[in-house]
Amino acid sequence: MTQATAPALFDRHRDRLDGAREALRTRDYWSAFPESPSPRVYGDTAAAGGEAAFRGYLDADFPLDQPGAGRVVTERSPYGIELNVAYPHADAETLLRAASDALPRWRDAGPEERVGVCLEILDRLHKRIFELAYAVQFTTGQAFVMAFQAGGAHALDRALEAIAVAYDAMTQIPGTATWTKPAGKGDPLRMAKEFHIVPRGVALVIGCNTFPTWNSWPGLFASLVTGNPVIVKPHPGAVLPLAITVAVAREVLAEAGHSPDVVGLAAEERGEGLASVLATDPRVRLVDYTGSTEYGDWLESHARQATVFTEKAGVNTVLVDSTDDFAGMCRNLAFSLTLYSGQMCTAPQTILVPADGIDTGSGRLSFDEVSRGIADAVAALTADDARAVELTGAIVNEAVLERVNRARSLGTVLLDSRELRHPNFADAVARTPLVIMLDADAAAAYGAEWFGPIAFIVPTANTAHSIAILRDITNARGALTTLVYSTDNKVVDEVTRAALDVGTHLSINLTGGVFVNQSTAFSDFHATGANPAANASLTDCAFVANRFRIVQSRSHSTRP
Amino acid sequence: MTQATAPALFDRHRDRLDGAREALRTRDYWSAFPESPSPRVYGDTAAAGGEAAFRGYLDADFPLDQPGAGRVVTERSPYGIELNVAYPHADAETLLRAASDALPRWRDAGPEERVGVCLEILDRLHKRIFELAYAVQFTTGQAFVMAFQAGGAHALDRALEAIAVAYDAMTQIPGTATWTKPAGKGDPLRMAKEFHIVPRGVALVIGCNTFPTWNSWPGLFASLVTGNPVIVKPHPGAVLPLAITVAVAREVLAEAGHSPDVVGLAAEERGEGLASVLATDPRVRLVDYTGSTEYGDWLESHARQATVFTEKAGVNTVLVDSTDDFAGMCRNLAFSLTLYSGQMCTAPQTILVPADGIDTGSGRLSFDEVSRGIADAVAALTADDARAVELTGAIVNEAVLERVNRARSLGTVLLDSRELRHPNFADAVARTPLVIMLDADAAAAYGAEWFGPIAFIVPTANTAHSIAILRDITNARGALTTLVYSTDNKVVDEVTRAALDVGTHLSINLTGGVFVNQSTAFSDFHATGANPAANASLTDCAFVANRFRIVQSRSHSTRP
Repeated sequence: MTQATAPALFDRHRDRLDGAREALRTRDYWSAFPESPSPRVYGDTAAAGGEAAFRGYLDADFPLDQPGAGRVVTERSPYGIELNVAYPHADAETLLRAASDALPRWRDAGPEERVGVCLEILDRLHKRIFELAYAVQFTTGQAFVMAFQAGGAHALDRALEAIAVAYDAMTQIPGTATWTKPAGKGDPLRMAKEFHIVPRGVALVIGCNTFPTWNSWPGLFASLVTGNPVIVKPHPGAVLPLAITVAVAREVLAEAGHSPDVVGLAAEERGEGLASVLATDPRVRLVDYTGSTEYGDWLESHARQATVFTEKAGVNTVLVDSTDDFAGMCRNLAFSLTLYSGQMCTAPQTILVPADGIDTGSGRLSFDEVSRGIADAVAALTADDARAVELTGAIVNEAVLERVNRARSLGTVLLDSRELRHPNFADAVARTPLVIMLDADAAAAYGAEWFGPIAFIVPTANTAHSIAILRDITNARGALTTLVYSTDNKVVDEVTRAALDVGTHLSINLTGGVFVNQSTAFSDFHATGANPAANASLTDCAFVANRFRIVQSRSHSTRP
Repeated sequence: MTQATAPALFDRHRDRLDGAREALRTRDYWSAFPESPSPRVYGDTAAAGGEAAFRGYLDADFPLDQPGAGRVVTERSPYGIELNVAYPHADAETLLRAASDALPRWRDAGPEERVGVCLEILDRLHKRIFELAYAVQFTTGQAFVMAFQAGGAHALDRALEAIAVAYDAMTQIPGTATWTKPAGKGDPLRMAKEFHIVPRGVALVIGCNTFPTWNSWPGLFASLVTGNPVIVKPHPGAVLPLAITVAVAREVLAEAGHSPDVVGLAAEERGEGLASVLATDPRVRLVDYTGSTEYGDWLESHARQATVFTEKAGVNTVLVDSTDDFAGMCRNLAFSLTLYSGQMCTAPQTILVPADGIDTGSGRLSFDEVSRGIADAVAALTADDARAVELTGAIVNEAVLERVNRARSLGTVLLDSRELRHPNFADAVARTPLVIMLDADAAAAYGAEWFGPIAFIVPTANTAHSIAILRDITNARGALTTLVYSTDNKVVDEVTRAALDVGTHLSINLTGGVFVNQSTAFSDFHATGANPAANASLTDCAFVANRFRIVQSRSHSTRP
């Protein structure tokens, strides 16, 4: 960018913005950022260039010029490689002061200038998509293609979506208005009015280990574009993707004539507790968080001066009533259970099947046949280690492994979890899914979240019983996704009604290339905000409307 | 209405809805409900008919067929007449169960049907506007014309505004969508999607004594139209206007085939504490409140399961720097100080004037001349008792009188408050405004809210000092309105910047027929939600967006 002024940035990216806004209205398929890492799309040198850029960060100080002193090194790669990236280690007060000082100028820039800057940041991040993909892969344990898609292209789409929704919300009201009220036979009353979008204050984004970009960018850009300086507090296990994000944001901000301190990085030591200090500071008025229910609840209780958006844990239920494509159902479920080793907030966990079996297109199958079919599909999908790791990726941390070990003893093992040997990374920690049968009265086990490659298949009295369990689990623990298989419209209607009552998104009869753990920007909502798993959705109007306020001024006008 | 179906209701009121939506986009003057009580507008019999209807409620059981038993009588008229209206006295559990049971059907009706019902309720309320005006007048102490306008026509406009903003928010996304994603050479992926608007739960509206309709209706109708059953908890001093509201709502709901329990009345004994029981019940997910800062803060702290919208107390500041229409300034301020005896959350209270005086169009005036000019204008406006009471109305309760007495001893009395004799109501309690001079170091007094006919004029070192005081007061106590008088654009710019920083709406150089304590629907925002006086605005996107969630379902589609 050669000294592009901010209006020029808005104009430059106007088509992309309008494309996103139109897609949001139809909610048909649309994407601004190609999801295929193919050289045909990104060119022959993009992958190697991105990998080189990623390697360049290792064993070095991360290049980020921001207030504060000292360095912090915290990442451990699930792929077993040494990362050793040293990030600037700023204290809370330094970060908050820098952000607060940057607020007025960023506020006064107005919506269009901020949209232009934010879209330019996305464009720059897109140019670094391979670098980001490697950063996501080696910090989270995602397989490369998933890291490229979920951590790169889809995350960019989700960020663009948040910017577009916020733009629509900010521009619903005009910047100025004339108000002319008839006054009988006298001159009308005339007022000139101005409406200013003002930010809430400093925003804090608290990232997670598994989806540092996808889960952080929507809140980050929603807060940023509405005028709030943003402090990004990455998970100590996945700093690099967000450090790159902050570096790019600061670069674009500075070039556009803004203080780079509109965006800052709050890297911290493990256990330092920087998030809690920042989240409860009076200057912080917005918090976006993805992670454990325990800490999400803590934030909601303690960050009282802020509006807190949380995505926490949930228990995702699959309700099997009947199907006319049993093999397709098993393949689809197996993929969803295997993808990134179930380390997704959207991964299915608890599969409810009538104890007396189900109807299929080719006759009735017993409960054992159904559960065996699902377990076999997982086994087939993960039979070849080299292929399997491209789906499972690696295990993000030791707690997941411990959880798998504990889950083994909960019930009958239908398919054991086994170690996978990664062909390229000898020290990668990879596992296939564990599939366990649990009795319907073991709700304490299958009704809790077992984050990782762990699935439960539960025999229920009948589908009505399954629906009752779905309601109980979702009311108590929340859910990001729910999936039902049924050829009976009446059952689908009943489950749909249950989903409305307990506030969970529902997928119906997925047997092909769409999976319950995937939601697509501009069309699908991620969470609902209507059950305990999350208090917000990516991205609806409620996700952006409270990130700004409107302040008006008015005076008599002599102009008719 | 003769068995009108709900779609018919939507169609019937479609023009009014669209008029409101268009007005919100331009924010020019617009109104759906004429504010003049003239017979030329409302017909020759409307006033008498409304008064007769009002009188018919007195000394009787209020006709409201809702679950619960017992009666409660709590109102005392500031005009000294006997009211003795006995309202149904339901317990919290009965109200909550009735509302919860009514939720699914009301949710499933969908946005358009709910909009139709809500607009029909407004239409019926409009037909009873005189009855409502008398009910507001004799419970709040407002003068009749104000009760007709603020309590009737303007309140209806504000309710319509909330419905229109909510309608736009609900219909931003389509009800259904098809999603077609190209898949290389194979068939595209096709999904059919449905998006459902779901309510948060039961909504609670807690009314205030001074503006039972104007302050309650926006939240009531915003919650109702988004699918939440609403329990209306009126202030024990002003039950009748909201009892009429609930009766009309239940009538329309029943006629449209809905459970009348979608709206219920929670009348209570003084001190019963019903609001606290309701507000903290897990079924209640939305609370709208207008009243004291103390109880508003309590609600925000304790009704943790709910989204709480509060309008609390503030200290409204007037900053006098210079004027080219000193007489107009004094007349305008005098009117604002006198209207409803300052018993408005928007009434100005603390007037900051440079100790060395101000420039005017006709030369420099000393501080004493300025403060004398303001006090004299108030005295002139209230000189004739019979005319004065048509502005001041009556004092809403004993606490306001005590406050006036305490305020007298705070500083130098520039204009004492005096008793007004109402020509028609011998026992009406009416007072003129008290105007007190306070030193700039008496911030403990003028920086706190003195709700009632109490104004402070404070000599400051200069306008920069005035701006600093404005910032301090608004940051500490909040403000609903701020007013500046200056002929110097630089000063106006500085005050505007201060208003943006502290988050308060600003009126500039009001010398004519627009007053700082009046905000107009479809154009002005009421509060900002950006300072301690309120956490929400009437009515912006943030006021409606969190009253509903979106739940989606999706399935493979075979239709191309």
